[in-house]
Amino acid sequence: MEVRGGNMSPKIVRVSVRDVRFPTSLEQHGSDAMHTDPDYSAAYVVLETDGGLKGFGLTFTLGKGTEIVGPGERSDPPGDGCSPKCCVGSVGESGGQGALMAFFYLAEDEMLREGYPAYTTSCAWLGYSDQQLQQLCTDALKSGWTKFKVKVGADLDDDVRRCRLIREMIGPENTLMIDANQRWDVSEAVGWVSELAEVKPLWIEEPTSPDDILGHAAISKALAPLGIGVASGEQCHNRVMFKQFLQAGALQFVQIDSCRLGSVNENLAVLLMAHKFQVPVCPHAGGVGLCELVQHLILFDYICVSASLSNRYVQTISDASLSYKIPGYSCEMLESSVQKHQYPDGEVWKVLPKK
Amino acid sequence: MEVRGGNMSPKIVRVSVRDVRFPTSLEQHGSDAMHTDPDYSAAYVVLETDGGLKGFGLTFTLGKGTEIVGPGERSDPPGDGCSPKCCVGSVGESGGQGALMAFFYLAEDEMLREGYPAYTTSCAWLGYSDQQLQQLCTDALKSGWTKFKVKVGADLDDDVRRCRLIREMIGPENTLMIDANQRWDVSEAVGWVSELAEVKPLWIEEPTSPDDILGHAAISKALAPLGIGVASGEQCHNRVMFKQFLQAGALQFVQIDSCRLGSVNENLAVLLMAHKFQVPVCPHAGGVGLCELVQHLILFDYICVSASLSNRYVQTISDASLSYKIPGYSCEMLESSVQKHQYPDGEVWKVLPKK
Repeated sequence: MEVRGGNMSPKIVRVSVRDVRFPTSLEQHGSDAMHTDPDYSAAYVVLETDGGLKGFGLTFTLGKGTEIVGPGERSDPPGDGCSPKCCVGSVGESGGQGALMAFFYLAEDEMLREGYPAYTTSCAWLGYSDQQLQQLCTDALKSGWTKFKVKVGADLDDDVRRCRLIREMIGPENTLMIDANQRWDVSEAVGWVSELAEVKPLWIEEPTSPDDILGHAAISKALAPLGIGVASGEQCHNRVMFKQFLQAGALQFVQIDSCRLGSVNENLAVLLMAHKFQVPVCPHAGGVGLCELVQHLILFDYICVSASLSNRYVQTISDASLSYKIPGYSCEMLESSVQKHQYPDGEVWKVLPKK
Repeated sequence: MEVRGGNMSPKIVRVSVRDVRFPTSLEQHGSDAMHTDPDYSAAYVVLETDGGLKGFGLTFTLGKGTEIVGPGERSDPPGDGCSPKCCVGSVGESGGQGALMAFFYLAEDEMLREGYPAYTTSCAWLGYSDQQLQQLCTDALKSGWTKFKVKVGADLDDDVRRCRLIREMIGPENTLMIDANQRWDVSEAVGWVSELAEVKPLWIEEPTSPDDILGHAAISKALAPLGIGVASGEQCHNRVMFKQFLQAGALQFVQIDSCRLGSVNENLAVLLMAHKFQVPVCPHAGGVGLCELVQHLILFDYICVSASLSNRYVQTISDASLSYKIPGYSCEMLESSVQKHQYPDGEVWKVLPKK
């Protein structure tokens, strides 16, 4: 470990938390069966030290959520009245610890730079028209994408039509995943996904309540004969939940989220458990800052824990495989972007109707 | 259902959320193995309508927690960026819906008034001296209490000494429960509680992480031969978690919390599931406002669901059995008390050091 940019024992002299929101709901970017008008947003934390060194951390929210996790960012330990490691405590801790961890960095500049297999969700948000799906899918194929996730769960007929369309366009050799964003009950999930088995999805993501470990186990068991795995974890708030998902055989793909879990420490615990159970980790990302943060976690997984890329894909929004530029778990945002999107007074929000 | 005190379709014209804190940590009231200096507090919600009708709701916190649940009180649905029914979303919803429900009331004035069996936690907080335990226990016995809960989990020798002391004072015919407030790992819980089996506790409460359903199931199985049940639920944030606790045989006593769950609707779902699994409900209470709210839920359980008082005890701080004065799930606080304890400007907090 090396401390960068200042003295070895910096003292934190200032913590700021800012509410940065991007009005993605205006064009249905990010829409799914559960979140119909999300504004991709971040509670953005900056720690300043006496030596001038700064740390930058953030937590992804869908807009209003910032008002809830914001106070958690300021609390250490997580504000009481919540269970330790409860979801919002963790989310808050994530931003704060992220900012702290930015002072240090793993030896990532020694790590491979060939990239890490990635998939895209950007072609098939639930609110997109078929025409839009086709256009985006064509573009993504041209850019070299081979793995595509489709949002499902609102209407079965729509899902069958949209999934057939995507499968037709990407061909049998590429990978398709489906994501229901918690929409179903347990038996409903099994029935619905069975209807979509013809498009050969690699996994069904969040088929039911993210807290329902035993429900996920039942769904996993029912879908195994169809060759469809269950993926979940983006709403999983601590290692205790992941421990049980793994114990119960409830997941075939572990989707850690760098901000939902209480930052680096908690994520590493999950990586180690997933390795013990030999379940691949395919992190959730795509939200504000998540792609930036998660790349450090999967490289740690690859180099220090699993040593495997088999069935491991990271969700990204930029390139078909992740490549790395700067080591360190920091995530400074462009100050001009923060100012423009700060809620409710940034120029973007001033001209939009108050939510 | 009847709407009280106004027209039938009141329109909500104002929502206020206030941060009310009682400095209980000054004398170690409420101290346990996990929460060493809690200030019992409430996020207090008042809904005002155009007809003058008001609804009062609250959510119990340990002080700083109010800063986190407060924004949740204002959100409907719970602020996004959180899982639906996640712990803080629920806690916030609880206060808000509580205030709403106050407009209505169950037909409680037809309900029995003989009282409901209750137990006390007030004699044996973790931070109390042995002398204090003895004095409080003596007083409680004189006042007719027959069921006593002791906080454990910080030090085994202390626990053995304190539990023996209490068992000696209350005699073999009265009931003793122990509560570890999540302090242990699974195997540690089994070992520690086995050492305390000699004092014949009815239950061990929160032996490990409140999210660890499979852990609670393992502890239940290990302690069953000793005749000690497992109680949990006060940190359980939704019906999905309770469903699994019941499915897995992980609890022998279901401890709903009127504020942790998303108010009346979510609590009723748990009462019905507990009945299906024939597990008694012994609500968590004792915090700010909980005793007031929970009495309505247990009467509903008794009259409409379980029709049984067997192994059912409610946690109270006032009397050895609960009796009812006014029907309705409302909880207006004395305005003078709110003003005095409002954080950080009330007169109580002005003279105390800033936390």
